[in-house]
Amino acid sequence: MLIAIPQSMHFEAALPLQSGASLRDYDLSFETYGTLNAHKSNTVLICHALNASHHLAGVYEGQPKSKGWWDNMIGPGKPLDTGKFFVIGVNNPGSCFGSTGPMHINPDTGLVYGADFPVVTVEDWVHAQARLLDALGITTLAAVMGGSLGGMQALSWAIQYPKRVRHAVVIASAPNLTAENIAFNEVARRAIVTDPDFHEGNFYQHDTIPKRGLRIARMIGHITYLSDDVMNEKFGRQLRDSVINTVHKNSRAYKYTTQDIEFQIESYLRYQGDKFAEYFDANTYLLITRVLDYFDPAARFGGNLSLALAQVTAKFLLVSFTTDWRFAPKRSREIVKALLDNQRDVSYAEITAQHGHDAFLLDDPHYISVISSYFDRIDQAMGAGA
Amino acid sequence: MLIAIPQSMHFEAALPLQSGASLRDYDLSFETYGTLNAHKSNTVLICHALNASHHLAGVYEGQPKSKGWWDNMIGPGKPLDTGKFFVIGVNNPGSCFGSTGPMHINPDTGLVYGADFPVVTVEDWVHAQARLLDALGITTLAAVMGGSLGGMQALSWAIQYPKRVRHAVVIASAPNLTAENIAFNEVARRAIVTDPDFHEGNFYQHDTIPKRGLRIARMIGHITYLSDDVMNEKFGRQLRDSVINTVHKNSRAYKYTTQDIEFQIESYLRYQGDKFAEYFDANTYLLITRVLDYFDPAARFGGNLSLALAQVTAKFLLVSFTTDWRFAPKRSREIVKALLDNQRDVSYAEITAQHGHDAFLLDDPHYISVISSYFDRIDQAMGAGA
Repeated sequence: MLIAIPQSMHFEAALPLQSGASLRDYDLSFETYGTLNAHKSNTVLICHALNASHHLAGVYEGQPKSKGWWDNMIGPGKPLDTGKFFVIGVNNPGSCFGSTGPMHINPDTGLVYGADFPVVTVEDWVHAQARLLDALGITTLAAVMGGSLGGMQALSWAIQYPKRVRHAVVIASAPNLTAENIAFNEVARRAIVTDPDFHEGNFYQHDTIPKRGLRIARMIGHITYLSDDVMNEKFGRQLRDSVINTVHKNSRAYKYTTQDIEFQIESYLRYQGDKFAEYFDANTYLLITRVLDYFDPAARFGGNLSLALAQVTAKFLLVSFTTDWRFAPKRSREIVKALLDNQRDVSYAEITAQHGHDAFLLDDPHYISVISSYFDRIDQAMGAGA
Repeated sequence: MLIAIPQSMHFEAALPLQSGASLRDYDLSFETYGTLNAHKSNTVLICHALNASHHLAGVYEGQPKSKGWWDNMIGPGKPLDTGKFFVIGVNNPGSCFGSTGPMHINPDTGLVYGADFPVVTVEDWVHAQARLLDALGITTLAAVMGGSLGGMQALSWAIQYPKRVRHAVVIASAPNLTAENIAFNEVARRAIVTDPDFHEGNFYQHDTIPKRGLRIARMIGHITYLSDDVMNEKFGRQLRDSVINTVHKNSRAYKYTTQDIEFQIESYLRYQGDKFAEYFDANTYLLITRVLDYFDPAARFGGNLSLALAQVTAKFLLVSFTTDWRFAPKRSREIVKALLDNQRDVSYAEITAQHGHDAFLLDDPHYISVISSYFDRIDQAMGAGA
C-alpha cells in the first residue's frame, strides 16, 4: 500500500482574491505521489470537490483506514499511474482539512476568522495552486484533473494558465451551476445559518457546532449525489424495523411514527448527516457552496462559453455519467461544444452508469478504462518528447 | 365570481385508523359548489394535496383575494363545470385548515394534540371522506379527482369503495413514493423536528413556532415541485443586485457574500419559505409527509399493483407531465399498466409541460382540454342514464 506523507507550505505574500479582498499568511496542505522526472514534465495536479482534500491516495503510516479519496484512481499501476506521473493534491484555502480556513486565526485581528474568512472562488483556488507549483519549481502540468467542483478547477486552469496545462480532464462537471443547483446550495446554507448554534459564524468562540444545520445540509447534498434509480435499488421502500402485520401475515407493517425512523433510506441519510457534522466545518460549507455558485467563466463574455474558451490550448477529456442529474451530461456537452467551436482537441465519454453524480468516485470499468487510456496517451506523448 | 361558503360537520363516532388508534370527536371542514341532482348522481369529490384545503374554487364573501386553489379548473363553465356537477372539497383530518388537527384539543387529555395527533393515512382520509358523504346522503360519486397526494386518494377510493366510484381522475400521482421522494420528505421533517422551537411538537404551549424548520421544509419542497428547465427559464443565474464590475464593464459582478442573497432563485425560495412558515402547522407537515410515505396499496400484495387493483371497477383518467420528476410519468404508467392488466377502462394523457410537478395546478391548454373532455363524457353518460 502506498504510504502518503502530508506536507504543508507557508505563503508570506498575500493572495489577491477576485472579491477584492486578499488572504495573507496562509498555509496550503498538500501531498505528492510518484517522482518528478528530469524534465519536470510529468506532473498531474488533482483538484478536489466540496468534501475532499489533498489526501488523494494511499494511507498514512500506521493508519490503515486513512485511504485517500481517489485511491481507486491514483497509485502505482492504477489508471493515473504514480509509477509514471508525479501527482499532487492540494487542499484549497477555505477548506477544513489543513490549509488555512475559517477555523484558523485571522492575522489582522488575532481572532478566529469564522464568518470573516474572505469569499474565495475557483479562480482564486487555481491561483493558489499555481503559486504552490511555482514554489515547487514546476512550470507546466502534464495534466490537471478533477471531478465536479474539481472539474471546474481543471477547466479554469486551462483558461487562466493556457501555457502551463497540456491536458485537462474534467469529470462530472459543468461550466456553471443551474438555478436548481444554486437552489439546493441555498437551502443547505439556510439550514446552517439559521441553526441557533451557528452564532453568525462565530460558533468556535461559543464552544459549539451548528450540527443540526450541517446534518440537514449533508442530507440534501447526499440526495443530489445519488440517482433516483440507485436509491430505489439500494433502499427502495424497505423498512428498518417493522411490526408483524396481524391482518396480512405476508406483508410488513409500519410503526406509524412521524419522528422515528421508519424506512431504510431515512436511516442511511441520518447516518450520513451525523457523520458529516462530526468533521466538516460549517463556514467552509458556506464558502465552498459559494465557490460553486459563483463559477461562471462565460459570464464576462455575455454568457458565450466559446468566447470564454478561446485562449485555451490544452487538450481535453470530458467525462459525464448518464444518471448524474446534479451535473448532467448536457452540461459537459456544452463544454465539448465550446471547445469544438474553437477547434480544440477534445475527447468526450458519456458513461452509462447508475450511481448519479457519485459515479465519478466509483469503479465503473468503462469509466476507469477511459481515464486509464487517456493517461497512457499522455505518457506515450511524453516519451516521444511532446 | 363564485362565492364559496365554508361548512363544517362534527362526527361523534370515532374514526378507526390504520395504525390501530382512532380519532374521536372530530370535525371536517368542507365546501360544496353547484347543485346535487335529483338522482344524486352528479357528485364529484376533490381530494387535496399537502398544502391545500377544502376551499377549491371561488372566493369568500368580501374577500376578493381568497381564491380557491383549483379555481382555474372548477366553477361555472370551467373544465369541471359546477353548472353540471355537485363538487365537494373536504379538508382532511390532521391538516391545518379547519378540520381537526394537531393544533386542536385532544378530548382524551383536554390538552392540544401537538405531536400526539394520531398518524393518519390515505386510507383513513378516504374513510373520513366516505363518512362525510354518508352524512350528506350521497352514495355514489360521478368522479373522484385529485393531483399528487390527492391523486393517491382518488386511487384509494377506487380500491376501498369500488361500488361508490364511477370515475377516478388521478393527476401527477404515483402508486407509492420512491426512495428519493421519501428522502426529501425525511430531510424536511428533520429540519422541523430539530428546530429548537419545535419542543417535541408541543410548541403551542411554548407560544412559539418552529419557523426555521418550516422554511427549510418548504424550500426543499419548492425545488422538487419545479422542473430544472422552468427554474432556469424563470431565474437562471440572474443576480438580485449586483455591483458594477470595474474590470469588465459589460458584466454584472457578485457581491461576494455567503449569507446574504446573491441570486434571484435564493430570493424566491426564501420568500416562499417565509410565507409558508406564517400559516402552515409544523405537526401537520410531519403528518402529511408520512401520509405520502406510507401510501402503498400494492404492499399487501407483495408489491403487485395489478393484484391490488383487481377489485377496482371505476373508469380511470390518468394524467402526468413530462418534466415532473417528483411524480414522473413512469409512475402514472405503472397505474395504467396495472389497470390494463385487469382489463379496466383507462385513459392516459402524458402532457408535454415545462413546469414540473406544479403543472397540475396550472393552465396548460392541452391539460385543461383533457380534463374538460373527460368531464363532458361523464356528463353525457349521466344524461344517458349511465
